[in-house]
Amino acid sequence: MSATVVRYGIIGAGNMGMGHMNTFLSGAIQGAELTAVCDVSAQKRAEVKEKWSHLQVFEHVKDMLHSGAIDAVLIATPHYMHPSEAMEAFRAGLHVLIEKPAGVYIKQVREMNTAAQQSGNVFGIVYNQRMNPMYRKLRELIQEGELGTIRRTNWIITNWYRPQAYYDSGSWRATWSGEGGGVLINQCPHQLDLWQWTIGMMPKRMRAFCQFGKHRDIEVENDVTAYVEYENGATGLFVTSTAEAPGTNRYEVTGDRGKVVIEDGMLSFWRLRESEQDFNQRNTQAFGAPECWKIELPAFGPSPEHAGILQNFTDAILKGTPLVAPGEEGIHGLTLSNAMHLSTWLDDWVDLPLDEDLHEAELRKRIESSRHKVTTT
Amino acid sequence: MSATVVRYGIIGAGNMGMGHMNTFLSGAIQGAELTAVCDVSAQKRAEVKEKWSHLQVFEHVKDMLHSGAIDAVLIATPHYMHPSEAMEAFRAGLHVLIEKPAGVYIKQVREMNTAAQQSGNVFGIVYNQRMNPMYRKLRELIQEGELGTIRRTNWIITNWYRPQAYYDSGSWRATWSGEGGGVLINQCPHQLDLWQWTIGMMPKRMRAFCQFGKHRDIEVENDVTAYVEYENGATGLFVTSTAEAPGTNRYEVTGDRGKVVIEDGMLSFWRLRESEQDFNQRNTQAFGAPECWKIELPAFGPSPEHAGILQNFTDAILKGTPLVAPGEEGIHGLTLSNAMHLSTWLDDWVDLPLDEDLHEAELRKRIESSRHKVTTT
Repeated sequence: MSATVVRYGIIGAGNMGMGHMNTFLSGAIQGAELTAVCDVSAQKRAEVKEKWSHLQVFEHVKDMLHSGAIDAVLIATPHYMHPSEAMEAFRAGLHVLIEKPAGVYIKQVREMNTAAQQSGNVFGIVYNQRMNPMYRKLRELIQEGELGTIRRTNWIITNWYRPQAYYDSGSWRATWSGEGGGVLINQCPHQLDLWQWTIGMMPKRMRAFCQFGKHRDIEVENDVTAYVEYENGATGLFVTSTAEAPGTNRYEVTGDRGKVVIEDGMLSFWRLRESEQDFNQRNTQAFGAPECWKIELPAFGPSPEHAGILQNFTDAILKGTPLVAPGEEGIHGLTLSNAMHLSTWLDDWVDLPLDEDLHEAELRKRIESSRHKVTTT
Repeated sequence: MSATVVRYGIIGAGNMGMGHMNTFLSGAIQGAELTAVCDVSAQKRAEVKEKWSHLQVFEHVKDMLHSGAIDAVLIATPHYMHPSEAMEAFRAGLHVLIEKPAGVYIKQVREMNTAAQQSGNVFGIVYNQRMNPMYRKLRELIQEGELGTIRRTNWIITNWYRPQAYYDSGSWRATWSGEGGGVLINQCPHQLDLWQWTIGMMPKRMRAFCQFGKHRDIEVENDVTAYVEYENGATGLFVTSTAEAPGTNRYEVTGDRGKVVIEDGMLSFWRLRESEQDFNQRNTQAFGAPECWKIELPAFGPSPEHAGILQNFTDAILKGTPLVAPGEEGIHGLTLSNAMHLSTWLDDWVDLPLDEDLHEAELRKRIESSRHKVTTT
């Protein structure tokens, strides 16, 4: 792109969309200019127009995408709409940045990914937690071999407390037809992304236990325990809930060279002086153990979060900077959440890559009997 | 008992037996006197005789049990032998204290428990970690309702590092015929006891994933992930391994009144000002959450560990003091470990109470093809 400024349009002026508008309009993103906003709600459009009269405001997505007023679109609509809107935007020749999750079921997301590749345009996803220096450091330590071969992952992410009043705040919330899931689709996409992004591995099979409407009057899952096995023999756990207070956010990764725990905004790193495997081979003492060092890493700066993702996406368009969160990678975390649903519905193991048709068929059954009646894609 | 001193005999002069001898002979246990020791090994007997010439030393268990030289016996032999030796001791009219685990399969342990009840004698088990003031405090907090209704348990106990040299130090080690299991039978009995003792609940069903001989040349399990569901709707996890360093020992319990975490020798306690349930019922804010207090508890003293159990057992005989660890309760932790094996072998859910015959039949298959050839009970 030869231009020096990327003109952005935002679809959806809800909580996330408004947040992104504020970020753009604060001038924090170099090389980015917000020029247009689209929302189906007349009230939302009026609200935007009143605050920022210079913005072009659209009712219909297609009108904005084909208006010529924008080079890139940021999609911040309900989950189900991300793939179809992204595909329309690619057809309009635009660069696309989508909010998480990539979509609701991976079959739909795979089509979006194909459209993205065919378009040749820049495609990103707002995985802002990939900007968090602690998760970046963990990923770097693993990529550089500092943890050795990964043996176990264990993420307890139960601090997503959501009272009934939250679920009652929108009839689409926590329904199969409105959101396509619960805590896995709405709250956990970041952790489901980081869980595989940090270690660079997807599981090969999974046995998950979702509980639906636990301590809450909702139809979707809000309490999940998932056990996974990886190709290299490692195992993993992912536990989440929206009904616990104060809850926990603790991510532990063990390799044959040590252990990292991220909890309470801290990364703790224990490193073995030699790999457990090497020690074990030479050791002759029944109660011997490899020498372990507690490592103090340099201090971490603050996380640039959303602004970091918006800047990186803009730089990718203007300068070809590599994306921190390519849109195509949204399918990985979604695969994990789809697999957790399917394993629970079948009460059995599921292998990965997932049987996408089976998952979609099972999901459609739940959508048909959902308490929230809408026409979805 | 009208006597003022309990005369003890110990069966088994291995690591644990020698430890108990030292404790008794140091004079740390009020009202207890060690008078006799029994071991099949001539070398062990000579060793004991050389160190403490005043002790009576026996080769055959029955001879010591019926010698009239002892009032109580402490059984510190291989796991399989605990039930048969305990039953013989009850027949001899003795009080019995057994090392953990209670036995290897619950059918065998149930017979021992029946014999204990019929004898009317005092029956204890060396669950010395029940003396640890942190686990006692957790149990007390739960019993008194400070955590409310239990919603989740999560124990990561992966700091049982055992190198191959450990497994190679005895041909019976880590074999189905010699020990009847691996990390669950040998290393984890304390945690499997505390896991249900602290919360006062056994699961109603379980789905477990044992891995056998992981990173080690052994035939039994040394890597386990178990998921459980309790009658009241709570869920739980238990994760253990002998091949990880430095490993983790972290026990988290969540209730509708708060959360406790025991890790790194510290108990952390977060308490909700009102129960999550009560808050949720009255709350109208979509992102509201119950007020949470971080509680600082009074300092914990050191744990009396083994000496505490020996003193309590002696006091139970002499003064009728209630036992901290009644022998009959050894069956609970063993049930959990048996269920973890069975769920893995069947690759399916197992309900509790466990199908004892099915478990025993499956275990016997493994004993028959065990690499360690012995005649076991």
